[in-house]
Amino acid sequence: MRTKVAIIGAGPGGLLLGRLLENAGVETVILERRSQDYVLGRIRAGVLEQGTVELLDKAGVGEKMHAEGLVHDGVELCFDGEKHRFDFRELIGRTVMVYGQTEVTRDLMQARDASGAATIYEAENVSIHDFGGDKPSVRYTKDGVEHELACDFIAGCDGYHGVARASLPDGALKTFERVYPFGWLGILVDKPPVADELIYAHHARGFALCSMRSPTRSRYYVQVPLDEKVEEWSDDRFWDELRRRVDEETADRLVTGQSIEKSIAPLRSFVAEPLRFGRLFLAGDAAHIVPPTGAKGLNLAASDVGVLAEALIEFYIERSSAGIDGYSARVLSRVWKAERFSWWMTSILHTFPDTDAFGRRMQRAEFDYLRGSQAASRSLAENYTGLPF
Amino acid sequence: MRTKVAIIGAGPGGLLLGRLLENAGVETVILERRSQDYVLGRIRAGVLEQGTVELLDKAGVGEKMHAEGLVHDGVELCFDGEKHRFDFRELIGRTVMVYGQTEVTRDLMQARDASGAATIYEAENVSIHDFGGDKPSVRYTKDGVEHELACDFIAGCDGYHGVARASLPDGALKTFERVYPFGWLGILVDKPPVADELIYAHHARGFALCSMRSPTRSRYYVQVPLDEKVEEWSDDRFWDELRRRVDEETADRLVTGQSIEKSIAPLRSFVAEPLRFGRLFLAGDAAHIVPPTGAKGLNLAASDVGVLAEALIEFYIERSSAGIDGYSARVLSRVWKAERFSWWMTSILHTFPDTDAFGRRMQRAEFDYLRGSQAASRSLAENYTGLPF
Repeated sequence: MRTKVAIIGAGPGGLLLGRLLENAGVETVILERRSQDYVLGRIRAGVLEQGTVELLDKAGVGEKMHAEGLVHDGVELCFDGEKHRFDFRELIGRTVMVYGQTEVTRDLMQARDASGAATIYEAENVSIHDFGGDKPSVRYTKDGVEHELACDFIAGCDGYHGVARASLPDGALKTFERVYPFGWLGILVDKPPVADELIYAHHARGFALCSMRSPTRSRYYVQVPLDEKVEEWSDDRFWDELRRRVDEETADRLVTGQSIEKSIAPLRSFVAEPLRFGRLFLAGDAAHIVPPTGAKGLNLAASDVGVLAEALIEFYIERSSAGIDGYSARVLSRVWKAERFSWWMTSILHTFPDTDAFGRRMQRAEFDYLRGSQAASRSLAENYTGLPF
Repeated sequence: MRTKVAIIGAGPGGLLLGRLLENAGVETVILERRSQDYVLGRIRAGVLEQGTVELLDKAGVGEKMHAEGLVHDGVELCFDGEKHRFDFRELIGRTVMVYGQTEVTRDLMQARDASGAATIYEAENVSIHDFGGDKPSVRYTKDGVEHELACDFIAGCDGYHGVARASLPDGALKTFERVYPFGWLGILVDKPPVADELIYAHHARGFALCSMRSPTRSRYYVQVPLDEKVEEWSDDRFWDELRRRVDEETADRLVTGQSIEKSIAPLRSFVAEPLRFGRLFLAGDAAHIVPPTGAKGLNLAASDVGVLAEALIEFYIERSSAGIDGYSARVLSRVWKAERFSWWMTSILHTFPDTDAFGRRMQRAEFDYLRGSQAASRSLAENYTGLPF
């Protein structure tokens, strides 16, 4: 079997890359270790930057998103019970779209299925080869049979634990990492969200986030210590804790219910450099991880593959390798800024075990300055809605 | 002896307070532990915010400042040898004035001497009394003779080590502090500055600052470990180290010479709360300290006493204690924002012994974001030139 671009991973990054390439007539095969249902079962991010929305439109998969997604003009930050709204549309004329990663993935899968492009789910023992030369290949096992896929390029869109980054020789990558001393306990509940927009709350007891997936499905989070066990959190305990961390009005308005999902996720910042090795590219979580504060994970994956698709199309149509050669530097420049924003949002909104009284006042001063300054509010708005590609 | 407002400390804060009050017909006496020459010998800050310039004008002591001070439209930040200029005038229509603290102090002293208002230098054993009631007093010894000064109010403008804050009972104050793990080794030299504007440099070897007092007198700093000894720094060693930390063009242009002053200053953030106790007020360094990165120390002292003068004049002219009652909250709101800015400037520009590779990239990403974003550049500009009172 042979294709132009072998894409490892059928998450939203890999699928979007495939879609953008197929639309330009560049043939792809996607290999995915898990089943289609497993991929769709992942509950992840739900906030799309304006640039991500534009990219999904460009890929021709924006119809359902525009019909069902919720355009948010702003967010609220709540500090020790005091709330302030940042109106992105008013500040900088941009917005975000609330539309779950699961939905984005489903839309992309349906478009791909309809196009007839090959996606091989439950591809086992995926391994990548010869990407240093111009004849790379991917080997995998499907239903007990070994296969080899010859290709021009390999795109590693297979996440933090994927095979692509792990296949690089020792010393090829420089990595940067920050592990935060807490996690997010999240629940999903089929009740209307407490507010029309997201509420990010800082409180002495820890961070909390009121978020949503749709007008009838809500997503809430509270910061917990890393060693916390999800079994120790009844729904009632969760709701009590959430109420304590937000402002009174929000606490009173909260519509609680039985959780349909409950889990604890650790927070991590991670960047690998560079992102291209001959004919192998890393994109999305395979290349970098952000803590979820700031909602950048899915958006970075989208902007990575947007740049990569452009570069590969340039290679096939214009016979120029300039885009490919520039991929790593171009993507990393934006990635580091999103890493900075995610780290900063995390730093001001969470409580840290080793933060002293002065540090806590710095968090508070940041909030007071932010809400009082148009320049600082605009800076928040442009980062949250997405810096230019 | 009796006066309306007893001011402890003849630094720029105390002198400016005295001047603003005297101009409004409110009699003051300033008590200073040191001699006039000693006070004038202190080499400190040199950058005045636009609001400080306006306040000095309002006090009627701006003439020499406007004749000799240097209006700066911006500053340069240099990161690992890459320089970027932030043009405050273009960004937000504001500027700063480079005019040494020594000069400000001298101008204020001359104005006070000319007005005939009482300043008692070398006042020993100063102690403050009964500020909880409405008949406070200050006692001191001058030339071996004990004196008592009865007054309506006491203004503690006597610095971090002064008697005013130290006189408060245990538990009266809440204090917040951050001590940084490095100091600034500074030299003063009678040579023209390397550039027309200040250059703040981040380098793997540590922070450096190219500053000035006048077109013929320069002030340079390099970050050094806290246990460094000034005797170990010959002028040549200093110049070599400075050249390594700035961009090549700056290093080449540097005009070196024999230092006329050389010293190491530690960096500290400190805030005390509240700033009013009955009829005692704390202002300037007696109330808060900032690290010098961001040039906020003298400016905060000026804005404190600007607010305090207004409040006291309101008390005497309008018979209202609203200004007095609001002094602490009003001043602290601005102080915390300046503390935040000073801490932030310090954090991104210095090297910290415990910063990992990810943290160093966050510093770099901050610089890259700053120079690329108009919103972030404006935020820097509005903080550097001074947030509104």
